Amino acid sequence: MDLATIIGILSGLGLIASSILMNGDFGIFVSVPSMMIVGGGTIAAILIAYPLKEALGVMRIGMKVFMSTKQNYMGLIQELAQIASIAKQQGVLALEAEAKKSKNPLIQQGLMMISDGFPRTTVVKILTSQITTMQNRHRAGREIFAEMGKYAPAFGMVGTLIGLVQMLAGLNDPSSIGPKMAVALITTFYGALLANLLFNPMATKLKRRSETETLEMRLIIEALLSIQDGENPKIMVDKLKVFLDRQLKAMVEKKMFKSPVPARKAA
Amino acid sequence: MDLATIIGILSGLGLIASSILMNGDFGIFVSVPSMMIVGGGTIAAILIAYPLKEALGVMRIGMKVFMSTKQNYMGLIQELAQIASIAKQQGVLALEAEAKKSKNPLIQQGLMMISDGFPRTTVVKILTSQITTMQNRHRAGREIFAEMGKYAPAFGMVGTLIGLVQMLAGLNDPSSIGPKMAVALITTFYGALLANLLFNPMATKLKRRSETETLEMRLIIEALLSIQDGENPKIMVDKLKVFLDRQLKAMVEKKMFKSPVPARKAA
Amino acid sequence: MDLATIIGILSGLGLIASSILMNGDFGIFVSVPSMMIVGGGTIAAILIAYPLKEALGVMRIGMKVFMSTKQNYMGLIQELAQIASIAKQQGVLALEAEAKKSKNPLIQQGLMMISDGFPRTTVVKILTSQITTMQNRHRAGREIFAEMGKYAPAFGMVGTLIGLVQMLAGLNDPSSIGPKMAVALITTFYGALLANLLFNPMATKLKRRSETETLEMRLIIEALLSIQDGENPKIMVDKLKVFLDRQLKAMVEKKMFKSPVPARKAA
Amino acid sequence: MDLATIIGILSGLGLIASSILMNGDFGIFVSVPSMMIVGGGTIAAILIAYPLKEALGVMRIGMKVFMSTKQNYMGLIQELAQIASIAKQQGVLALEAEAKKSKNPLIQQGLMMISDGFPRTTVVKILTSQITTMQNRHRAGREIFAEMGKYAPAFGMVGTLIGLVQMLAGLNDPSSIGPKMAVALITTFYGALLANLLFNPMATKLKRRSETETLEMRLIIEALLSIQDGENPKIMVDKLKVFLDRQLKAMVEKKMFKSPVPARKAA
Amino acid sequence: MDLATIIGILSGLGLIASSILMNGDFGIFVSVPSMMIVGGGTIAAILIAYPLKEALGVMRIGMKVFMSTKQNYMGLIQELAQIASIAKQQGVLALEAEAKKSKNPLIQQGLMMISDGFPRTTVVKILTSQITTMQNRHRAGREIFAEMGKYAPAFGMVGTLIGLVQMLAGLNDPSSIGPKMAVALITTFYGALLANLLFNPMATKLKRRSETETLEMRLIIEALLSIQDGENPKIMVDKLKVFLDRQLKAMVEKKMFKSPVPARKAA
Repeated sequence: MDLATIIGILSGLGLIASSILMNGDFGIFVSVPSMMIVGGGTIAAILIAYPLKEALGVMRIGMKVFMSTKQNYMGLIQELAQIASIAKQQGVLALEAEAKKSKNPLIQQGLMMISDGFPRTTVVKILTSQITTMQNRHRAGREIFAEMGKYAPAFGMVGTLIGLVQMLAGLNDPSSIGPKMAVALITTFYGALLANLLFNPMATKLKRRSETETLEMRLIIEALLSIQDGENPKIMVDKLKVFLDRQLKAMVEKKMFKSPVPARKAA
Repeated sequence: MDLATIIGILSGLGLIASSILMNGDFGIFVSVPSMMIVGGGTIAAILIAYPLKEALGVMRIGMKVFMSTKQNYMGLIQELAQIASIAKQQGVLALEAEAKKSKNPLIQQGLMMISDGFPRTTVVKILTSQITTMQNRHRAGREIFAEMGKYAPAFGMVGTLIGLVQMLAGLNDPSSIGPKMAVALITTFYGALLANLLFNPMATKLKRRSETETLEMRLIIEALLSIQDGENPKIMVDKLKVFLDRQLKAMVEKKMFKSPVPARKAA
Repeated sequence: MDLATIIGILSGLGLIASSILMNGDFGIFVSVPSMMIVGGGTIAAILIAYPLKEALGVMRIGMKVFMSTKQNYMGLIQELAQIASIAKQQGVLALEAEAKKSKNPLIQQGLMMISDGFPRTTVVKILTSQITTMQNRHRAGREIFAEMGKYAPAFGMVGTLIGLVQMLAGLNDPSSIGPKMAVALITTFYGALLANLLFNPMATKLKRRSETETLEMRLIIEALLSIQDGENPKIMVDKLKVFLDRQLKAMVEKKMFKSPVPARKAA
Repeated sequence: MDLATIIGILSGLGLIASSILMNGDFGIFVSVPSMMIVGGGTIAAILIAYPLKEALGVMRIGMKVFMSTKQNYMGLIQELAQIASIAKQQGVLALEAEAKKSKNPLIQQGLMMISDGFPRTTVVKILTSQITTMQNRHRAGREIFAEMGKYAPAFGMVGTLIGLVQMLAGLNDPSSIGPKMAVALITTFYGALLANLLFNPMATKLKRRSETETLEMRLIIEALLSIQDGENPKIMVDKLKVFLDRQLKAMVEKKMFKSPVPARKAA
Repeated sequence: MDLATIIGILSGLGLIASSILMNGDFGIFVSVPSMMIVGGGTIAAILIAYPLKEALGVMRIGMKVFMSTKQNYMGLIQELAQIASIAKQQGVLALEAEAKKSKNPLIQQGLMMISDGFPRTTVVKILTSQITTMQNRHRAGREIFAEMGKYAPAFGMVGTLIGLVQMLAGLNDPSSIGPKMAVALITTFYGALLANLLFNPMATKLKRRSETETLEMRLIIEALLSIQDGENPKIMVDKLKVFLDRQLKAMVEKKMFKSPVPARKAA
């Protein structure tokens, strides 16, 4: 579970709810037609804008925001250092066995290609296309949320316009103006809330997720190329550390010195 | 038929209509001058902004959004693998016959150039310019919809301003204020609806269509170059799979193993 | 005459005018101070934002939107194919005479450089800088219209604010509120109309014009380099056709086969 | 003096002032608290957003918009042609004396490096970094004006909100509503006027200035490299003319033919 | 302490406060529910949008805006010139000792790699990835502030909508309209103030900080490569000066001539 997402949504809704309850009851903020216009209009626009398969995949992508993905860079670098020293000691052909042991599909694919003797440029090309393919898949999902963040307030305004027109057209009873305008404004309120408490922040988090995954894949590719070039595992680890931020770098450095990774001996 | 587009537009209009009918009748939302200003103004702006030929082509491009284009990547990869193994067995000259059999104009053109012995760089240049030309053609069409998505609300506001000025200038009968303002606001309502339920989502779908077509063309070019280079069909299929997303990749893999594609034997 | 521009502006103004006349007379929409603020303010902002020479050149650039420029790609390709076959038959030195015959300054300059024996890289550099220079000149002109499309509504709002402040400051006669607010809103109406029916669409059309001209210049440069390389005129025509869209391509193909262009024989 | 800037600001203010005076007196548009909020708030935001040195440098950069900088491309090309023919006749070492004669720091630096025998790539790198450094310096200054163009209307709205809250909180005297709202709106008016008649146009003009200076520097670098390569001065002038627009090009051509520039003889 | 930031925030708040006090007391501008919605909503959105670690790091990053970082380019160039002349006189191996003396981690890392005999391309790659890593870290922090600058006004509007709906729904007491609308508008006021006096300017300052740090790192890398290439220290200083702006350049020139830097002798 991604705790930040859960806390954010619950605390946001809680704050809005409690500030509503401070000045009155909740009932006036519930309006079925308003929900229909904002929710339904946004969904309709997304169905027109995106292929059916992608539009239906929104729920699944949205769930990702609630699930935590912990980056274990240290473990990853240790695994890669281990593989590098095995390649150094037992030759490139030994990598096929390593490929089967690894759980990361990118490491698997890369090691298979290296042990199959693919030329370096082909390895680079195929592995980096994997990053592009992944980024495109993520971008498509993220864009749907960003679009929903635009359509929700737009249909909020559409609903408010409908309410205002209906109120103004039948302006015979002055005492009904207030409540009718209140109902009209609720649609705008729904749109603003959905966009700013759900769709826009979720689009941002999906973007960060994609960046993190890109970084990890770039780190792996860097390591695989280093292995194919037969580079010293120590130099490889030095290169990989560049990808990490300061705190992680210090941790990796400490761990690497203590742990009897073959990479250190080979240096 | 692109089901998503149809469902989206019908459900969107249905939701708006039913939420209007919940609180009154439909009549007050029909205004001919408002339609004239929003529709006519948007068309006028597009006529000024784009060459006549492109502006008139909008309808035809718009129809594309309603038509479904199913990507048959598996069939495409099988066709290309077949061609690759024929080139491997019978030589490059045999490709002229294959070019005539293919229904895809890009495959035709590419095979003709390969069998004519064009140098690799020329083949790359001409084929990739085909992508650029296609993208430019699509972009031009898409941009018109995006522009209409900007002009519709703008002329909605223009119409509302006209209504407000007329109402305010003749403010002698207070009881007429409401209905007149209602009429003025309908133009803004039309503009918002057209932009958010038609023009903007259609521009997005056209963009996705272009991306899909680009991917398919890039896949074909990759395959053609692989054929020209005389690469092993198995390696070619491996390269092409990189373009596909996960689900498709699994399907291609299964199919390829079962089907007696010559590419597998040649490997 | 660019018919689309004329039709667009006339029909746009006609629609606005007729929808105004449906509900009242035209008089209330004429306000000299409002025109002064929107028109004068926009001109003032442009004078501050751009060098005097460019600001004064706006009228001349604006006229371009009303003039039609028909692309005659077929004629252009025929001319270039003719030149290519002459170069093939009579040698590069014969191009000086061809340079003088051509009416296109880019063809002239290119042929002169080729017959003068300039190295290929120099020819490429000088000719492509011509594209960049042309694009920069166009961009500068187009940007002024885009800026006017931003300043017109902004000064529309400034004028409305002035009107509102004056009305609110002297609120002793309630019956004068309506007419005064009407006058205040007219400035916003002017700004919105100028931006959406003139400045913004004109900026877009100028952009399309620039793209078309760029395409034509790139086609010419491609042909000139092909001539300098002594390529077969038939291959050259094949390369040039890539630049054209589908309809044109079919036309060029038909024409080329029928017309006794030397390029076909030389192939 | 940049006449366009002066005319623009004076005519803009004059138009606003006269359209105010047409409908009342000027007094109601003067409000010290509104000025404090818009002016002070904008300055405060800039102080937070930029290093103190840059924020204080705004006045000096702003003055540049009022000063005219006439480009003398013809003189520049003549000077460079002269230097080129001297280099051709007397050798590269003679350029040290020319460097001292020139008033342009970029020409000085370039000639010094050429006469010192710096390799071509170093000359290119150092001179083009001068362009980047200049552009960064300009961009920083220009961005401050663009930011002020955003903060001024934002603080205008803040001031109007303050006024509205104060008015609404003490709504016991209905007759005071109008004048108080008028005062509240003046802050928005100030913000809009500052942004659209000062900050935004000034940011644009600074951008154009930077582009012109970049063009001039690129022209000089092109010439210096031509000199270092020992190219014919005539070819150099041909290359430089590409940078100029049509009108200037015709002028340069005429002048060059008449004036006894050594470059013509050497050709 | 970054004086500009402090002065900016204090003067901004002071101006707003004093302009409020001119027309009434401060009490009506304090509203706990409004603070809850704007502050809480913004924090909630950030928690959803960013990983917990980054969201919590905002305070620490925000503090950086208040701390001054003085660039000492002169000292840096002197240090690098010193190192360059030592490398020239004592060979590359002497750089390990220099690496230990330096306080700058980038200089340390670079000198270690040079003395270890890493190939040039590896040195370039690792050092420039340090810039990219630093920029990404900064960008992540800066983006959070820019996002807060968008969410604060959005939740300001949400709060105002809540207030308006509550007011309009219970419109039985006309005299309560004013005060209730005042309270509703305060939320918008809070949002606008937070965005324009805190979040947006802070995001800009963080961006400038990042640019300055990038410049410094690029200067160091330029110097280290010059050292690795065994370039003359004088030429190195010439190259480095290009990075500085005019004022600094004059200062460096003067200092360098007076100070007995070995680089001058070696020239």
